[in-house]
Amino acid sequence: MADALANKIARHMHAAEKTSAAWGVELVGAGEGWARASMKIRDDMLNGHGVAHGGMIFALADTAFAWACNARNVVTFAQAATISFLSKAEPGETLVAEAREAGVAGRSGVYDVRVTANDGRVVAVFQGLSRTGGGEVINEEG
Amino acid sequence: MADALANKIARHMHAAEKTSAAWGVELVGAGEGWARASMKIRDDMLNGHGVAHGGMIFALADTAFAWACNARNVVTFAQAATISFLSKAEPGETLVAEAREAGVAGRSGVYDVRVTANDGRVVAVFQGLSRTGGGEVINEEG
Amino acid sequence: MADALANKIARHMHAAEKTSAAWGVELVGAGEGWARASMKIRDDMLNGHGVAHGGMIFALADTAFAWACNARNVVTFAQAATISFLSKAEPGETLVAEAREAGVAGRSGVYDVRVTANDGRVVAVFQGLSRTGGGEVINEEG
Amino acid sequence: MADALANKIARHMHAAEKTSAAWGVELVGAGEGWARASMKIRDDMLNGHGVAHGGMIFALADTAFAWACNARNVVTFAQAATISFLSKAEPGETLVAEAREAGVAGRSGVYDVRVTANDGRVVAVFQGLSRTGGGEVINEEG
Repeated sequence: MADALANKIARHMHAAEKTSAAWGVELVGAGEGWARASMKIRDDMLNGHGVAHGGMIFALADTAFAWACNARNVVTFAQAATISFLSKAEPGETLVAEAREAGVAGRSGVYDVRVTANDGRVVAVFQGLSRTGGGEVINEEG
Repeated sequence: MADALANKIARHMHAAEKTSAAWGVELVGAGEGWARASMKIRDDMLNGHGVAHGGMIFALADTAFAWACNARNVVTFAQAATISFLSKAEPGETLVAEAREAGVAGRSGVYDVRVTANDGRVVAVFQGLSRTGGGEVINEEG
Repeated sequence: MADALANKIARHMHAAEKTSAAWGVELVGAGEGWARASMKIRDDMLNGHGVAHGGMIFALADTAFAWACNARNVVTFAQAATISFLSKAEPGETLVAEAREAGVAGRSGVYDVRVTANDGRVVAVFQGLSRTGGGEVINEEG
Repeated sequence: MADALANKIARHMHAAEKTSAAWGVELVGAGEGWARASMKIRDDMLNGHGVAHGGMIFALADTAFAWACNARNVVTFAQAATISFLSKAEPGETLVAEAREAGVAGRSGVYDVRVTANDGRVVAVFQGLSRTGGGEVINEEG
C-alpha cells in the first residue's frame, strides 16, 4: 500500500515537473522511502571540459530526492543538499540516481542519493535535508 | 592583471560550456577570486510546484563557482558542494550568483556563492570545494 | 544597540555552555550577525596523526555559528552544517572561528564560518543552516 | 581477511587518538568499509540548552568516518563533511555512530554515517568525503 502510494506520487510529480521533460528524466521506480530516476547525458549538458556539468548531475539527484521525500503524501521541500563528485560522466552515458531515506524526525528528513553509471561506477553521492510543509501531494481518492 | 586574466578565463569557460547556452547563463563579471553569473528562470526550469527547480539554482551557483575557482589559470574541478535553499524563485525572475574565494590551501579551495533575486532577497547560499588538476585553462599568450 | 544585544547574548551563551569551559573556548567578540570564538589546540584534542581532530575544529566553528545565529535574541538551532578542512592545526596553536550571516529568510538562516590560525592560514571553512524556534535567548530587561 | 585488517586498523586508530580517551569513545566494531563508535553524553558535552553540543555529535560521527575510510590500510584524511541534526541528545544517553562506504573512486571516497540513540531514533546523519594520502596506517606484518 505504502509502496503503491509512493509510486503514484512519483508518477504525479514526474509528470508535473517541466524539468523532467526538459532534461529527459525518467522515473525508474519508487516505493516507500525510496525513488530511482535516470537521465541520459546530452550534448547540451556538458561543461567546458566536455563532460557532464555538475549542475546536471545534482539536478538528477535532487529529482530523485524530491520524489522520495514526498512519498508519504505530505508536501515536502528540499532545505539543503550536499553533493560529492567522484567520477566524470561522458556524453551518451545514462545515469541512475537512487534516493533512500536515511532518517526522519518530526518535520525533517535526510535522504542519501547515489548516482551511478551503467558500468557500475559511482559518479556522485548526494545527501538532502527535507522539511514537510502542509497539504497532500495527490488526492489519494483520485 | 590578475583581474584581467580571471575575466578572460571566465569568458573562455562561458563560451565553451554548452550548458550556459542551454540555460541562458550570462557572465556578469569576474576578477581574481570571484565571478558573477545570471540566469532567467524559464518555464522549462520549473518543478511540480511551479517554482524554479533546486537543480537549476544549484546549476547557476555551480557555474559561478567553476569560473571563480579556475581564475588563476590552473584547471580546477569541483569536488563537492553544499546548497541551502532560502526562498523560492518564480518563473521570469532573473537570479544572480556571486562566487567568492573563502580559503585556499595547496590544491584545495573553498568558495562561497550567494544566489539573489532582483528584489535583493537571498534565494540560496552555496559552498563549493575545489581541487586543482594540471594544465592551464587558457593560453595566456593568446 | 543591535551590536550590544548580540554581544550580551554571546556572553550569556558562552557562560551557559559546558563545552566552552571544557574546551577552553573564548569569546573574542560578537555583534549583529557575527561572532568570533577562539580555542587553543590541547593534547587531548589530537587525533592519531598528532594534529587537531576534525571534530574539535568543527566544534569551535559550530560554537561561533551558534552565537551568531542567536544574536537577534530568538532561540535558534543548528539544522545542518558543512565543513571543509584546508590545513592541519598543530598542538599549541590557537584557532579563531569567525561566523558571519550569509542570508536569512523566514525562520531559516545561513552562516559562513572561517577558522584561521595565528599565521593567517585558513584551517577550515564551515557553512551552517539555522532555524529559529521560539522564545528569547535572554531577557533584554535584565 | 579484509574485515580482520579493518578491525585491527580501527583498534590501532582508537588507541592512538587522544580524543577517544578524552571523550570516552568506544570502538563497537569495524570491518571492510564500515565502523561503529559509541559515546555517552556527559555533562561537559552540553550546550547552553542542556543537550549535547552539535560539535560532540559531529566529533563522534567523524571518528567512525575516520576508522572506516582508513580501513584499507592507506592513510586517508577527511576533506569535508556535512551533518544534519534530526533530534536532540540528552545527558546520559549513549550514541552510536555507524559509518558505511557509499562510493570510492581513485583517491576519493564518500562515507555515510548515522548517529542513533538507544531508543532507535536518529540523532544525526553525516556524510564525509575522504582523500587518500600515502603510506600504511599499520604494519600488516606486526
